[in-house]
Amino acid sequence: MRAKQLMDTKFAYIHANDAVEDVAKVMEEIRRFTCPVVDEDMKLIGWVTSFDITRGLREGIDKISDVMSSADEVETINENAPARLAVIMTADNHYVAVPVLNDNNQVVGIIRSCDIVKLLSALYDIKVSSIYEAMQKQLKGVSWEDLMEASAAVSRRATGRKITPEEYENNINNSTFGEAIWATGGLENFFAGLISVGELVLARRVGRARK
Amino acid sequence: MRAKQLMDTKFAYIHANDAVEDVAKVMEEIRRFTCPVVDEDMKLIGWVTSFDITRGLREGIDKISDVMSSADEVETINENAPARLAVIMTADNHYVAVPVLNDNNQVVGIIRSCDIVKLLSALYDIKVSSIYEAMQKQLKGVSWEDLMEASAAVSRRATGRKITPEEYENNINNSTFGEAIWATGGLENFFAGLISVGELVLARRVGRARK
Repeated sequence: MRAKQLMDTKFAYIHANDAVEDVAKVMEEIRRFTCPVVDEDMKLIGWVTSFDITRGLREGIDKISDVMSSADEVETINENAPARLAVIMTADNHYVAVPVLNDNNQVVGIIRSCDIVKLLSALYDIKVSSIYEAMQKQLKGVSWEDLMEASAAVSRRATGRKITPEEYENNINNSTFGEAIWATGGLENFFAGLISVGELVLARRVGRARK
Repeated sequence: MRAKQLMDTKFAYIHANDAVEDVAKVMEEIRRFTCPVVDEDMKLIGWVTSFDITRGLREGIDKISDVMSSADEVETINENAPARLAVIMTADNHYVAVPVLNDNNQVVGIIRSCDIVKLLSALYDIKVSSIYEAMQKQLKGVSWEDLMEASAAVSRRATGRKITPEEYENNINNSTFGEAIWATGGLENFFAGLISVGELVLARRVGRARK
């Protein structure tokens, strides 16, 4: 995934000669805490946050050019850069938004932290049962019942607590990948558990084939 | 994970009688676009965003109580609720911050979208090789070389492209879980690939044992 696939292309932009008060109204209307300042060619020349706007209003400063940060103080990302760079920039610096530029330094979009949350949480929110479905599809000749039985057996071994295949199925129908990761203590543990299940179910398949 | 484990406890809060101009300065200094308004008992009575502040400054409104949203317009989360609820609230509504309350409706923290990005991106940024290491540890009697050989074989089968075990190892050392998910077209596919690898490596182990 590239930055351009994650960015919001319906962003607002402002000009250096705009009045602080007018920009305040625009940002209130479109509900954006940050805004790129561009020249007539859409090249990034500055960046404005709500903090610049409140300071401008408090101190009676009229022009955006007198409150904005200059472009060289603003971290940007190229539209063809990996989207994960924008995620890392946002996570490391608590950015609310990162301007996306093309090779001509023109602003073509904005990546917002809420868009990143949406993207990442979609991953986080996948049902655990859908991972088991993919597993069953992959393991030819293994029924869903075999899989739930093996899963309950592995879970009993790992936790020492009794659990029936039906209870196990109910659990994975009602939990997400994110919850499973927290419950097992990390992604690696979660996958290791699934591998155990795969191992057991395959051993049982081999056992049946020999009979 | 509970909301209280994700929240920022060093948040700023304001009172209904505070002056809009003073709050503007505070929010500029601490760089927060939103702020809870509390009573003397830390109970949430309102919520202020930078948009309320710029409107107040533009329209000459003095008191926070005259620009704030009232508490019943603000979505909150209980400190003991699952953290993923805050993630979903933020993703669905583009929130920048969600106030966290205890059972007495007192504000005990704030969950910010950038904190969520940090949390989720840590998951996203795990090295693929660490998942293979967990897999090897789980599959007793399978060497790292066996695993890389099986992985390269599965990859060749899936993509039709030649890849050596060494190239495969190099790939997983240099890619993250997030990248792998995008590359394979989703978590389920990524995991189905791992299961294929596990299946092949186990079949080879059984084959060796029979010789």
